[in-house]
Amino acid sequence: MSSKTSKLSVIPLGGTGEIGKNIIAFEYEDSIIVIDGGVKFPDEELLGIDLVIPDIAYLEKNRERIKGLFITHGHEDHIGGLPFILPQLNIPIYGTKLTIGLVMAKFQERAPYPESLVHTIEPGELIQAGAFQVEAFRVTHSIPDAVGYSLLTPIGRVVYTGDFKVDYTPIDGQNMELGKLAGWGEEGILALICDSTNAERPGVTMSERVVGKTLREWFERAEGKIILASFASNVHRIQQAIDAADDIGRKVCVVGRSMESVVRTAIEMGYLKMPAQEILIESSEVDKIPRSGLLVLTTGSQGEPLAALTRMATGSHRQIKVETGDMVIIAATPIPGNEKLVGKTINHLYQIGAEVVTKEMGQVHVSGHANQEELKLVIRLARPRFLIPHHGEVRHQVALRRIGHMLGYEDKDIALTQLGSRVELSADRMEFGASVEAGSVNIDGLGVGDVGQIVLRDRQQLAQDGVVIVVAAISKAKPCTLISGPDIISRGFTFMKDAAELIEGAQKVGNSALTVQLEKDQIEWVTLKGALRDSLGNYFWEKTHRRPMILPVLVSI
Amino acid sequence: MSSKTSKLSVIPLGGTGEIGKNIIAFEYEDSIIVIDGGVKFPDEELLGIDLVIPDIAYLEKNRERIKGLFITHGHEDHIGGLPFILPQLNIPIYGTKLTIGLVMAKFQERAPYPESLVHTIEPGELIQAGAFQVEAFRVTHSIPDAVGYSLLTPIGRVVYTGDFKVDYTPIDGQNMELGKLAGWGEEGILALICDSTNAERPGVTMSERVVGKTLREWFERAEGKIILASFASNVHRIQQAIDAADDIGRKVCVVGRSMESVVRTAIEMGYLKMPAQEILIESSEVDKIPRSGLLVLTTGSQGEPLAALTRMATGSHRQIKVETGDMVIIAATPIPGNEKLVGKTINHLYQIGAEVVTKEMGQVHVSGHANQEELKLVIRLARPRFLIPHHGEVRHQVALRRIGHMLGYEDKDIALTQLGSRVELSADRMEFGASVEAGSVNIDGLGVGDVGQIVLRDRQQLAQDGVVIVVAAISKAKPCTLISGPDIISRGFTFMKDAAELIEGAQKVGNSALTVQLEKDQIEWVTLKGALRDSLGNYFWEKTHRRPMILPVLVSI
Repeated sequence: MSSKTSKLSVIPLGGTGEIGKNIIAFEYEDSIIVIDGGVKFPDEELLGIDLVIPDIAYLEKNRERIKGLFITHGHEDHIGGLPFILPQLNIPIYGTKLTIGLVMAKFQERAPYPESLVHTIEPGELIQAGAFQVEAFRVTHSIPDAVGYSLLTPIGRVVYTGDFKVDYTPIDGQNMELGKLAGWGEEGILALICDSTNAERPGVTMSERVVGKTLREWFERAEGKIILASFASNVHRIQQAIDAADDIGRKVCVVGRSMESVVRTAIEMGYLKMPAQEILIESSEVDKIPRSGLLVLTTGSQGEPLAALTRMATGSHRQIKVETGDMVIIAATPIPGNEKLVGKTINHLYQIGAEVVTKEMGQVHVSGHANQEELKLVIRLARPRFLIPHHGEVRHQVALRRIGHMLGYEDKDIALTQLGSRVELSADRMEFGASVEAGSVNIDGLGVGDVGQIVLRDRQQLAQDGVVIVVAAISKAKPCTLISGPDIISRGFTFMKDAAELIEGAQKVGNSALTVQLEKDQIEWVTLKGALRDSLGNYFWEKTHRRPMILPVLVSI
Repeated sequence: MSSKTSKLSVIPLGGTGEIGKNIIAFEYEDSIIVIDGGVKFPDEELLGIDLVIPDIAYLEKNRERIKGLFITHGHEDHIGGLPFILPQLNIPIYGTKLTIGLVMAKFQERAPYPESLVHTIEPGELIQAGAFQVEAFRVTHSIPDAVGYSLLTPIGRVVYTGDFKVDYTPIDGQNMELGKLAGWGEEGILALICDSTNAERPGVTMSERVVGKTLREWFERAEGKIILASFASNVHRIQQAIDAADDIGRKVCVVGRSMESVVRTAIEMGYLKMPAQEILIESSEVDKIPRSGLLVLTTGSQGEPLAALTRMATGSHRQIKVETGDMVIIAATPIPGNEKLVGKTINHLYQIGAEVVTKEMGQVHVSGHANQEELKLVIRLARPRFLIPHHGEVRHQVALRRIGHMLGYEDKDIALTQLGSRVELSADRMEFGASVEAGSVNIDGLGVGDVGQIVLRDRQQLAQDGVVIVVAAISKAKPCTLISGPDIISRGFTFMKDAAELIEGAQKVGNSALTVQLEKDQIEWVTLKGALRDSLGNYFWEKTHRRPMILPVLVSI
């Protein structure tokens, strides 16, 4: 079966046409390898949904052929889906030290993943996974230990960048392996699957080091407490903040579940270097320290309703009180959709009298993704035959295609994929094969996939105008008669105590609808319910211009 | 009663601590005047709410003392509440020509407002309204005919800027009356109530003229249709687009209800100057014109689900189809909260193959509000004794206070107000008096104010996890027994067809809860219902980690 004429398929199952839930499969003859398995936060129309994970039906069907799952880095949109995905697949996983540490932390609250399947790897190590020779290479990103992957197959090499920026001065001194990429480029890369998140942004992303410098400047100006909100996973930023606090003699208190967990893991694994002298204090000890001697590291940079900073801003955090003269630094950009939540937190903080420092006032945040000039650099070094924009919405994929055009690629050399696309590569050709099953699975509480379109549509109607329940008891004995009701119960529709007239009218409408039906020879339950729904639906629309969900409940005695 | 010792009260009833629903009252002895009466779009937690208007209880109680309502300009956040507010007050209203035209258009679909109460005024005209001598002065903003107001009282003059930017080259040549402001400043202004929307933004806002220039550049590059989405009320931008279309020989089609209505009103009233030759075409005629000869002006720049551009992007607009090679220009900034909707529209457009031009790619939009340097100019010219930031959230008010500090004002000279604050001014003193009733009134369909906290909380619960109805029939005769049920009906909770086991379990749980209660000597309806709610609530939480609303329906026979 193995021959030079076999094709290599690239199958994005998540993270294309969207930001989030990254997962991509590569298939060559009877070998499949998978990269990443992330989650996505639900759009606002997904009412009540906690998380969205990729639909992995295709992988489940082809489980026997999967040789391994390789992880690029420890962000939620790359590892958050693994606790749901891996138990279905039971396959070997590979990742660098910190990444594997963060993945294992996710399994702590669940059945553990078999240790024999978990492999910690080093960049440069060669792993033979079926027909693929896999090699991780270092990239710089907003979390330590991030890598991309080179996949060498009998028909050529494809390179998956993973999330990256080109930071020439990374905090941990672990440089992006541009030379390795260039070497592969010289040998010939068949396809580059490339991060397109920031492809719309001109120029270059600043180094994380810039943030350290800005933070120090703000820290020096602060008189009260300093509260710094940032993504928990940005270990380099946390390192810089702790170093700066140490230099100016402030103690550090870490607050918020994910921040506490990441700091603990990063210290244990040696990714956070703590000063010689004990600098961390418990949140219970905060009161013993003067405000001017304290830095609080916290979650909540996205205005999440339950996060620590949000609770501090509304005065409902147990340990940390924000006071007039405190300085709150929000070292993040709101993720699209969170702008209003972040704005609310900022307003609350100003209301208390805090000074609020945001990205607009100085570089307290930089992106973890490559801007246009960095993308051009990487494409020029890799010199791939074909280009596949990944990790982006359509607008970002199109923007990366535009960059490709500037670098001499034609439309036929660039594949804009959708979820489940199958891009088939041979040594000199790229084309789309038949798509595979792909999409989203909603997680709500303990339910995985049980909340689909019908349930969501119901939630949307309930959210808009509430529910009205019409209860009537009807005698079974012929001729059928109305024994009691119809009674009206409503929730989320109107305040019933103030709506006596409306409800009375509804009872009359329901009563006549039932009476008409009950006088017929043939009485069908479905027809009775339909009559109630229609007549009351029209009545309420006319009176209120609202469309509550109407649920007839008929009890036959 | 009238004496030099009376105080002048400034009472913001809307538009302070928030962006939207602007309305402010001024009170001196037995005279009250009101400025503006706007709406606000609901925050996302206000499920099902269409609009939010200010609570005007204070004005209703003091209706007899109100001498008039003065309108600054025709934007929704300044006039959208008037159809709800004015019928309650029945007071004279004043505004410039276009503003009054737009207000009257709002009354067209309702009972008309008495003509005798409607006054079209010119800037510079002196209107005596009780103790207030009111004079409008021209400002530049993103709609023609915008004014601020000077209110001369026995104890001094206060100036309300209204929404403004300092555009030295306005499209209609109607300059902001900076000289008038400076003159009043020389005479002495007691307090300046000042737009603070852009107080966080450094520098100056560009002139609307810049947009005209950029639009022309894009228009010249376009090969297919050009579709320009903008706020309907930005008549100057529409003028510039029409002029540019005329120069390059494109016909113009106006699409979207508010765009059609504003263009009609503006042409009728002479605010839009049309080229000599007929340039407008009906949307039904679009197919007769080559794509390269067409400019479509449309609504939907905010990604609103039902707006014309959104429907074009999803292929559901009846007349206008977007095709590969068309150019869509979104000449607006997303209002906070709309970023994701706008992003979706952009992605859909790219998917179709359109070229999408946004603000990031060139100045196709400028703000209508003054940035920091313009605010400094106006405060320097007006030289008010006291400064009252208005038209902004807390963060914007604080930012304007910071500007005040730079200009030498102290905290005691600057009043940060909340809804219903009463700022009392005497010739040399500013202090807070007792607050008045103020807040928000929700509009849902035809209901004004009937959807309050309880109904909204129910909607939130319904939206999150849906509703479960438990129905049981119970005999009245002692001993009470269960005749039928409990039956379970759910909506928005889980897909019932796939949840047979869950529902069966729930019936058992409900059954034992009822049985325990029915065995007691004293049976109370409330207790029965409570037992069902508690037992099923616990059961569902345990099984699903969801908290649907549980509604017991007991029928007694």
